[in-house]
Amino acid sequence: TSPKAAGDKKSSKKSKKQESQFLLKTPKGTKDWSDKDMVIRDAIFGSLSSLFKRHGAVTIDTPVFELREILTGKYGEDSKLIYNLEDQGGELTSLRYDLTVPFARFVASNSIASIKRYHIAKVYRRDQPAMTKGRMREFYQCDFDIAGNYDTMVPDSEILSLLCEGLSGLGIKDFKVKLNHRKILDGIFEACGVKEEYVRKISSAVDKLDKSPWEAVKKEMVEEKGQTEEVADKIGEFVKLNGTIREVLALLKSNEILAGNASAQKGIEEMTVLADYIDAFGIADRISFDLSLARGLDYYNGLIYEAVTAASAPPKNANELKEKAQKETKEVEDASEYVGVGSIAAGGRYDNLVGMFSNGKSIPCVGVSFGVERIFSIIKARAAKELEKVSSSHTQVYVMAFGGGEGWNGFLSERMAVTNELWKAGINSEYLFKTKANIRKQFDAAEKSGAQVAVILGKEEYPAGQIRIKLLGQGEDSDEGELVKVEELVDAVKTKLSSLNRDGLDEINRLIRGL
Amino acid sequence: TSPKAAGDKKSSKKSKKQESQFLLKTPKGTKDWSDKDMVIRDAIFGSLSSLFKRHGAVTIDTPVFELREILTGKYGEDSKLIYNLEDQGGELTSLRYDLTVPFARFVASNSIASIKRYHIAKVYRRDQPAMTKGRMREFYQCDFDIAGNYDTMVPDSEILSLLCEGLSGLGIKDFKVKLNHRKILDGIFEACGVKEEYVRKISSAVDKLDKSPWEAVKKEMVEEKGQTEEVADKIGEFVKLNGTIREVLALLKSNEILAGNASAQKGIEEMTVLADYIDAFGIADRISFDLSLARGLDYYNGLIYEAVTAASAPPKNANELKEKAQKETKEVEDASEYVGVGSIAAGGRYDNLVGMFSNGKSIPCVGVSFGVERIFSIIKARAAKELEKVSSSHTQVYVMAFGGGEGWNGFLSERMAVTNELWKAGINSEYLFKTKANIRKQFDAAEKSGAQVAVILGKEEYPAGQIRIKLLGQGEDSDEGELVKVEELVDAVKTKLSSLNRDGLDEINRLIRGL
Repeated sequence: TSPKAAGDKKSSKKSKKQESQFLLKTPKGTKDWSDKDMVIRDAIFGSLSSLFKRHGAVTIDTPVFELREILTGKYGEDSKLIYNLEDQGGELTSLRYDLTVPFARFVASNSIASIKRYHIAKVYRRDQPAMTKGRMREFYQCDFDIAGNYDTMVPDSEILSLLCEGLSGLGIKDFKVKLNHRKILDGIFEACGVKEEYVRKISSAVDKLDKSPWEAVKKEMVEEKGQTEEVADKIGEFVKLNGTIREVLALLKSNEILAGNASAQKGIEEMTVLADYIDAFGIADRISFDLSLARGLDYYNGLIYEAVTAASAPPKNANELKEKAQKETKEVEDASEYVGVGSIAAGGRYDNLVGMFSNGKSIPCVGVSFGVERIFSIIKARAAKELEKVSSSHTQVYVMAFGGGEGWNGFLSERMAVTNELWKAGINSEYLFKTKANIRKQFDAAEKSGAQVAVILGKEEYPAGQIRIKLLGQGEDSDEGELVKVEELVDAVKTKLSSLNRDGLDEINRLIRGL
Repeated sequence: TSPKAAGDKKSSKKSKKQESQFLLKTPKGTKDWSDKDMVIRDAIFGSLSSLFKRHGAVTIDTPVFELREILTGKYGEDSKLIYNLEDQGGELTSLRYDLTVPFARFVASNSIASIKRYHIAKVYRRDQPAMTKGRMREFYQCDFDIAGNYDTMVPDSEILSLLCEGLSGLGIKDFKVKLNHRKILDGIFEACGVKEEYVRKISSAVDKLDKSPWEAVKKEMVEEKGQTEEVADKIGEFVKLNGTIREVLALLKSNEILAGNASAQKGIEEMTVLADYIDAFGIADRISFDLSLARGLDYYNGLIYEAVTAASAPPKNANELKEKAQKETKEVEDASEYVGVGSIAAGGRYDNLVGMFSNGKSIPCVGVSFGVERIFSIIKARAAKELEKVSSSHTQVYVMAFGGGEGWNGFLSERMAVTNELWKAGINSEYLFKTKANIRKQFDAAEKSGAQVAVILGKEEYPAGQIRIKLLGQGEDSDEGELVKVEELVDAVKTKLSSLNRDGLDEINRLIRGL
């Protein structure tokens, strides 16, 4: 993520005329969600909520803005991406940047000793948007965190299991979970000769290895971050290592440089414990112990991880596309063309964050955040075709009146009363908002609504106590439906609907699961 | 709602010391939601979402902030309560004040001709908070709106039906829906001699009749809003009228002052149509046609309504309590003591709002907004006792290991593997995050989790391919459970759970429905 907040300045210089053209848009980096996109996103939320509940979590909701001091000093270089609220004569506040810091504040202010919580909510970052890749300024995070004092790597491994279960449940088949340990990484830096005050900076440099080649990262270490070539080269030997946990552990355990480093040995010990739990959960084939994974945020201090897919990587000619885009427009509004989706879920252990809010009385925490908009963009690309047949409303029944000629009033009040009966029975129903509606228009509206069953009040039939039920979407030559007694309507409709076994939600869930 | 935004100034003058004491709170007028409160609120959302879907609505999501121009000039006097975002070198934006204006912007910018949509989301108002009454600065609205050109009063009556259905479904039994029509109200003002430019001001004065006596409102009209005593008295005769739609219509139709007023006659005609539809939906007993209802917002131009209950009114000694509170503290942080809950749902017809965003090409709209936090405060007060037994997590099964002595390793990996099987089968399950856990601690944790079934891995039984299933919460002298084969565990647990027919959601839903 490359911060370009300063670039916004240009847009405020636009002429009045241009501004009025933009009146009807949403702010930069935000969008409206509607129609099928909304249905898919809701289904993703539903799938993840069920997952989180399955693991025993409760949910919380914190305010969208926090006292500014709460967020200060938690995000390192990225702090400049925080949205501030105007000082309107009250407390200074800012929009939340993630859900982790508000969670730590919540745990500290309520003196909570242990909790499994999930939180699905929007966060805000004044970053360069890449809208079609799901990189926005307002976006949802779906977080699951475990706070509490527990045995080594036990909650951590449950989070990894949940991460794999969550992505599989969303039909994402080709993901890998990259894993590393901050204690090992910091130990490597120390053992290679990096002084303590440079450790986080060198970690930030390593974090760029998923976008930049080693030569560029090495250059940054030597030219900008005060390391000798020799130190950088030693680090280079380590960060190219990856493989299964046991493979990489074998290399690390036999490594002489790390032998005397307490931090690295502690990390190695913890990873050894983790390897067994990974096996117990049956997810070893998803995991890659990757020493180049560093993660940007300052507050991680143990296991860190990141799930990636093929869509995570930027296109091969990203730099070319980026230069082209920058030449063509003075301000890049949307970087979608030349960035990848990035990691689709990530997290780690942060044992000291709660302590920053409670005079050092810390509660160990570990968690994962699903990037739901990024996952959405993958699912949408995969299921574009199948989505055409999904209805965005949940209407089951359309109530119509058939009639005409002398004295025909359109049965509006009657349609209202019948629909009301269906609503009371929990059946999703609609009717046309016209006093007199012709048959064609009612069928068109029914089709648009996605209803599967028509309930028809005939000019002669209804006053005689009878009502017609007809299947919709069966083609023109379908049957005339069946006549039932008015007082048996609700039961008859229920029977008809259950025989169809086809509701919007199941369709969309099959779709997001990739079945 | 009495704007007191300026009062905030005082808090910024607090000493440094005081500020650090407040570090761990949420901003004024906001709160964390967690535990059972969160479960109840989620259940309310669930109930309303189902209601909205039952009526054929789709849902949308708009950004939490809008370009500032979008909100400008929509809220009259209350515009000063809008939260602005800081100008950080980009577009000027503000937090949304309601969901109606963003909806109109959405309809206009997407050139939508007709839509039924619902939107459940937070809105922001820098108002005087009354937290325990559900009057906050950050609060949820649950909105249902119908946009499109339809026959007179047809969508309006569906909204009234949905409003009654929604409140009944939340176990609120004593509500009334006050109804009025802006065309009638404006016609009365005109016919009584109010000049056009004063009509909205006089309407605002009438809007205060639910909190102030007629004498105070009359004084405002005469002393501040340029009316003669005679005009005010004429208005006074009208606004005291209320009753069933047909009762009030009879009075209005025979009224000589209104006879020549086109606006009033148009409104009377529409209300006559509405009366039939109200009967068709069977909600006439809920409705009170009340000529004192005016509603604050400028954009309404037809039917307006507001649902109230006994809790809506402020306490009898409100003024006394208010003065006391103001004497005791310089700044009133929370006005809960002396305000009522207010209206719990409200709305109306606004045919011209979309046109403000689309060069006058308007789409008629009508909608209702449920005040979910206010409804929450009523449900919580009603169900305080029953809430004690509700669990805030959804855990169904707790997986334990029993053993000890020589070579006992606590079966942690085994508990992980078994729990993983349960998760894969969709069963909400947990286990203790300890390598070796004693029996007491596991039972305590199971009880805390709300699990109904224990799955027990015995030191001898499990290696022999058997596993124990036991009901929880049956008291100390309960049975020893039943032994099943490991490979039959999932089916056995499912059978056990379905025999219990007792899950958190049903309990909470029974509770919010007041059953």
